[in-house]
Formats: sequence, C-alpha cells, structure tokens
Amino acid sequence: MSFDAADARHMARALELARRGLYTTDPNPRVGCVIVRDGRVVGEGWHARAGEAHAEVVALHAAGERARGADVYLTLEPCAHHGKTPPCVDALIGARVARVVAAMRDPNPRVDGGGFAALQGAGIRWAVGLLEDQARALNPGFVLRMAHGRPFVRVKLAASLDGRTALASGESRWITGEAARADVQRLRARSSAILTGVDTVLADDPVLNVRAFEIGRQPIRVVLDSRLRTPPQARLFRPPGKTWLIAVAAEPEARRAIERSGAEVVLSAADAGGRVELAGALRLLADREINEVLVEAGRTLCGSLVEAGLVDELVLYFAPHLLGDGARGLFHLPGIARLSDRIALDIADVRAVGQDWRIVAKPVYPT
Amino acid sequence: MSFDAADARHMARALELARRGLYTTDPNPRVGCVIVRDGRVVGEGWHARAGEAHAEVVALHAAGERARGADVYLTLEPCAHHGKTPPCVDALIGARVARVVAAMRDPNPRVDGGGFAALQGAGIRWAVGLLEDQARALNPGFVLRMAHGRPFVRVKLAASLDGRTALASGESRWITGEAARADVQRLRARSSAILTGVDTVLADDPVLNVRAFEIGRQPIRVVLDSRLRTPPQARLFRPPGKTWLIAVAAEPEARRAIERSGAEVVLSAADAGGRVELAGALRLLADREINEVLVEAGRTLCGSLVEAGLVDELVLYFAPHLLGDGARGLFHLPGIARLSDRIALDIADVRAVGQDWRIVAKPVYPT
Ligand SMILES: [Zn+2]
Ligand SMILES: [Zn+2]
Repeated sequence: MSFDAADARHMARALELARRGLYTTDPNPRVGCVIVRDGRVVGEGWHARAGEAHAEVVALHAAGERARGADVYLTLEPCAHHGKTPPCVDALIGARVARVVAAMRDPNPRVDGGGFAALQGAGIRWAVGLLEDQARALNPGFVLRMAHGRPFVRVKLAASLDGRTALASGESRWITGEAARADVQRLRARSSAILTGVDTVLADDPVLNVRAFEIGRQPIRVVLDSRLRTPPQARLFRPPGKTWLIAVAAEPEARRAIERSGAEVVLSAADAGGRVELAGALRLLADREINEVLVEAGRTLCGSLVEAGLVDELVLYFAPHLLGDGARGLFHLPGIARLSDRIALDIADVRAVGQDWRIVAKPVYPT
Repeated sequence: MSFDAADARHMARALELARRGLYTTDPNPRVGCVIVRDGRVVGEGWHARAGEAHAEVVALHAAGERARGADVYLTLEPCAHHGKTPPCVDALIGARVARVVAAMRDPNPRVDGGGFAALQGAGIRWAVGLLEDQARALNPGFVLRMAHGRPFVRVKLAASLDGRTALASGESRWITGEAARADVQRLRARSSAILTGVDTVLADDPVLNVRAFEIGRQPIRVVLDSRLRTPPQARLFRPPGKTWLIAVAAEPEARRAIERSGAEVVLSAADAGGRVELAGALRLLADREINEVLVEAGRTLCGSLVEAGLVDELVLYFAPHLLGDGARGLFHLPGIARLSDRIALDIADVRAVGQDWRIVAKPVYPT
C-alpha cells in the first residue's frame, strides 16, 4: 500500500492533534487520530490523559455512523491489549472502518504488530510508515522505554557564551533570561521526571517543578543520592509532585526521615566509586514508566551521563555575556585525554530564545 | 535634501562596488562610486589599492562627457587634500557634475566636511547620510583610526560547543573544520594586522598569513612580546609579509637578532605588570595606519583585551563537540568576581559555517 498527498495531509493533522497531549498523556504516548470518509474529515481525536479515552475512541465517537467504510489515520499502531481501557482495535473493527493508516508500529517488541494482525483478521486494510520519523520524535521516551527499557534523557544547561554555568563561588542566578527560563518550564512539563544530583540539591535547594502553567500533573523529581544526604527539609520534597531518592544504601533512620518528608527511597546498584550506577538508575526509572527525563544538574552528573553514553539530547541555553575561565564549566569529562576522545555532537537546532540562544544537540556515540 | 528610492538603489550599488576593495585598499578605506545621468548609470568605480585611482576618478573616467550634470553617489565624502593622488573633489568639480550624494563624512575630524565645502564653493549640490550605517560598517577600522586614533579590534577564537579552545595539554589542531578555517582566512585578508602574544608564538609557532587566496598584500603580523622572547627562527618572520614585535624594552643584541630575521622591534609603554600596555600598543598601531586588527591569541591576551574594553567584535567559531571542563577556556577574565561584573555582549550574527557555528558579538561596555 502506498500513500498519497491526502494521506500525508491527514497524518500531519493527526500528528498535530497528538501534540496536544504533549504535557499530559504521561506515562502513555501522545497519539492523534483523524477519520476521513469520502475525502472529508468526519472525526478527530487525541489522547489527553492516562486513564481517559484513547485517540481512536475519541475520533470514532466524533465520527459516529460516518466511521463505517472510512479511512483512519493514527500516529501509532492501535492497541490490541486490555489496559486501563478496552483495546482500540476492537473499537475500529466494531465501527467497520475500511482502512487504517498508522505512522509507526507499537514500539513494544512483545506487542509489535498485534494491532495490525487483529485488523487483518477482520478484513480491514492497513498500512504503516507514513511520517514515521515525526511520530517517533513525538514520543522519544515512550519509544525508548518500550523498545530498550530505558528513558529518553535530555540534559538542560544554561551558560554564558563562553560556556560557564556559574561563577567559581557558585553564583548563577540568573545566567539566562526570562524567555529561556519559560522554555525550561516547557521542557519540564513534557518530562516524566526531572533528574538531579544531591550536590545540586545541597548547593541550590531547587524546587524543580512546573509552575509556569497548569498541566494537572508534576514530573517526578528524582535525586541521585547514593548516601541519602538530601536534608528532609529540602524544597523539592514539597507538594505538589512526588520525589524519589535513588540511593545505593539507606540507614533505616535516614530512610524514615526521608519518607516522613513524603519522598520515596529507591535502592539501586552502585558503581565502582560507590555512587549510583547511572545506566542502572535509568533502567529503574524506565521500569517505573518514566518516558522522558530532564536532567537539571551540575557539570559532574551531566558530564558522567555524557561520558557514559546515556544522553539522547542536550538543550543548551547560551546567554549573551562572558564570565571568564575562572567560572564553572558545562561538563566534567575526565575521560577526554586527547582531541580524538572528544564527544561529537549533531547540532539539531539553533535559535534565539529571548535574548539568549538555544542549541539543541545530540551526542554522537561510537556504535 | 532628501533621498528617494532611486538614490538608495544607487548608493546600495556604490556600497557593493566599495566592497570589492575589502581585501586590498588597506590602509585606505573601501570606497565605491556610481554616476547617474538622466536615471541611467553612466559610470562606476571603486578604490582597488592604495596608490591607485580613487573610486570617483575611476567612475568619472568611465562616464567621460556623460558626467556633466550627473548625480554622483559616493560611499565616503570626496577627498579634498593632496595625498598619493590629486584631490577627487577637484575632479568632480572639473567634470561639472550636478550633485554629489555621500553616505558618510570623512571620519577624520581635521578634514571633516572639507570635500563638501569645496563642492559648495563650486556651486555643486551635495548631501550626506544615505545608508550611512552600512558605509561605516564597511570601514570600521578606518573610521575608528581617523576619529579616535585606534584601530578596530576583532578577536577570533575557535572552541568546542562547551567553550574550550584546546585540551589542557595545549592540543588544539583542529577544533573547527575546513569551512571555519577558510572563513578565518577571509577575516585575515580584510585585516591590516594580525595580533598575537608571544606565548602563542612559543606554543604554536603560527605563520598567521593569508594563504587561501592571493590579495597582493599580507596583513602585518604583530606580536606583543614585552621582553623579546620570540625566537629568531619563528615561522611568522617568514616572507611574504612583515612582522612587528612590540616590546617594552629591548637588549641591543636581542633586537639585532630579531631585525636580522627581517622583523621590526617597536618599543611601547609597559603596564603595571611590566607587560605591553594594550591601549598604548593599539594607538601605536593606529599611528602606523593599521585599520583593522584581527587578534588570534590565547585566553590571556584575549581576556585582557576584553577586560580593558578594547574589543570591538568577537568572532567565535563553535565546533560540534565537547571537550569538558578540564580543557582551556576562551577568555581569562580575573576581574569578574560577581555575576554583575560579567561582560555583556550584543549578539550580531549566528550562522552555520560548514559543520561549525559562528557567532559574531560585540562587547557592550558601560559608558
Ligand atoms: Zn488504544
Ligand atoms: Zn579621493
């Protein structure tokens, strides 16, 4: 089955609808659906929130009887399993649609193709792969979690143009301007979790929540805190929003103090240096349905994640000023002894954000 | 006198012609001229090289008899003094043109308006100020030298995206790619001088010449070398191109060794630390007809120039990789103790140059 320009237009619309769930579907994927009968759109839908109707069901409801014999455009293979809601593929079959076009397969290898198989069994034509890259980009964390058992890791840092995040004294408020800080709120809002290190908590006592707008949820705040040094009165324990401390060991007393603050202590494996082993901690987060992780931490944790090959995306805000080489750098990368050891980047986007410049880059790890 | 759209179009063309002299007119300004008679361009010219004809004379020659009663568009006030060539204002008067439109006045306060006064005396209408900003931007060094006795100082640096110019070991070849290096050749070609420090000479033994293309001249290589430590066999003594060493004192023996290498030793004032005082060295360069200086040096000299308020433009090339905070920074700025001490920048241009990104910024010094 091949796709024509009308197919592409309808799928682009379905992607646009899916994007409306950017901040809210977590831990579910963002999914959009467009139903077209005789060239006319008769139903649209998107998934708004976990536990609520899936995109197909919303669109089928809007289309009503007009769904019979229609073409259905879906940004993700329809589900065929009983989750919090009945399988969407049954609803599509029940509505007697003629054809289902999906942008991408279900990334979970265990269910991969199950939705299409059910459609096939019911005699409904189907196709997959239209605007697939865009669909995958919409759910980078969900795709990685389902396919590889790890979340999508986005590291955000703000620096002067000469790459300095703070003065040697630690003074860093504010390096970047209001527009950049508002942009960070949007990054937080799309994330399942905000990851930081205990040193940042001790130095800055950050809140790490979404406060610029209301999304009906808060990302989980996760602190890598091998020896539970986070003080029980830390501001990131404050509601709304949950906090997890990932430790390698926990004295019962310290653990109880943390838990009385409303946070959860999660034990994970240690690395050779006795700190939380990073890849293991990320797997643990994926097991807990964390799709996208926003790292807001210092040069040590950010550098360790980069060096360990665990970073999917860097979002760097550069402010229009210089702080000089006595100030703190962006990444501590002790493994770089020669130029050939450097971490290569693929620059994906460069744009002005207020008075600052934002660069989005992907580390290119040797394969 | 006001300007219309045709005036602006002709002046834009004159600026385009002037730009053809970007690499060659030094130490003269880049100047273009368009002569228009009855709405038709009857002559064009630009200044190509010091000692050769000025733009007006070239354009008048092209126009011949058609210059009589014509409008003359000039990117700079016509000269009224006898230099290497006779004054252009006499040629304009002799050709009996009707009107002269200049983009800007002569920036030399001693001759300011002299060209217009001569035209006025001959009954030729004149006006000034059309596309003036563009005209000034074409000759930033000439304007500063004439108006303030100092050259335009452009600092070029290449770094990783995290702001590192070299590993701690000094390894830095090549941080940026071929396209960025070609771009630097163009910066050198438009400069009157390339300024560096003796530490860079000792560490990298650079050649600092224009080799990507032929411009019939080489910028002067200038080394700030307070105690004449540059070795006589340094590569930047090699022809073609001259080299000046600016020192605060010179042993006769060391001086003779340098001079045998073909370089010139110039004495200048010392700062409190016994190094070459930077503002004085720049004034010295302006006195020697240096318009634009390209600084290619390390973080210490670049930082000192920035902190002293002597930098007009930064051209920073960022390569798509990370080197980590153990590597060398861009600017040594020991005067920054608090965020409020930071050097503010006005970002003028951000663009891709091959695989790298080039940011042009101007330090915003408190006034
Ligand atoms: Zn479903
Ligand atoms: Zn002249």
